[in-house]
Amino acid sequence: MKSKLLLALLTVTLAGTAAAQVKVEDAIKFRQSGYAFMAWNMQRIKMNVEGTYNKEDVIKAANAIQAIANSGMDALYVPGSDKGKGWEDTRAKPGIFTDKEKVGKVATVFNKEANEMAKVAATGDAAAVGAQLGKLSDSCKGCHEDFKAKK
Amino acid sequence: MKSKLLLALLTVTLAGTAAAQVKVEDAIKFRQSGYAFMAWNMQRIKMNVEGTYNKEDVIKAANAIQAIANSGMDALYVPGSDKGKGWEDTRAKPGIFTDKEKVGKVATVFNKEANEMAKVAATGDAAAVGAQLGKLSDSCKGCHEDFKAKK
Repeated sequence: MKSKLLLALLTVTLAGTAAAQVKVEDAIKFRQSGYAFMAWNMQRIKMNVEGTYNKEDVIKAANAIQAIANSGMDALYVPGSDKGKGWEDTRAKPGIFTDKEKVGKVATVFNKEANEMAKVAATGDAAAVGAQLGKLSDSCKGCHEDFKAKK
Repeated sequence: MKSKLLLALLTVTLAGTAAAQVKVEDAIKFRQSGYAFMAWNMQRIKMNVEGTYNKEDVIKAANAIQAIANSGMDALYVPGSDKGKGWEDTRAKPGIFTDKEKVGKVATVFNKEANEMAKVAATGDAAAVGAQLGKLSDSCKGCHEDFKAKK
């Protein structure tokens, strides 16, 4: 009986932090989705810069990247999600779960460049958008090099 | 020779609209990603409303939904993507490619509710957020019923 009571108490306590709880396979799927959706929008901005420039299209793309970048995707790196399958097997390297300092640094740079991208997009200056896209892309790679396994 | 020249001219013309061009399998993958990422954020808002409410968490989630909803995902319904596999086989029903009037209606309602969700989230009023989440959820279902096949 005592252990049942303890379990009940534990359940109540955990329920209080429900906001952080996502199943491992869902967490992997959601983070893969966030990165893929940003990839589409990076690609869109690139095509606008290299082809016919549409200011509104670039603003929409930059706003999506900014909002996803700032959405708090770190919450999706739940315990146990270092291995497993979302849409596909996770390519997250172990360091992303352990090297808090380096992860914090690359995430901060990425957020800064994503916020800047949205600002530059709003100006409609295609050349400036192209330059900022380079910086943003570098900030993506800055994380991928250390923390994303190659296919 | 003539047909080669015509083909070359056609290629140049198509390159001019590069911004709209996404491969079918990528288009399906990107739209599945957008919907899945929004699903995570809907789930987060729900857990905040039902559990411990964190204003900043809800704002981040609502902003992500809003930016994705307004990103112009209609561009991902490229010709030929009525069938095919992104992360998984598409569940888009044929009508989403043909019934422009109805699709336009449900998309407008969805965008309106997503924009409203971001506004309500900014107030930090948990009850109002809960009510708006219901409306937003209904607007998702309003499209799924007609245009998304069940698993």
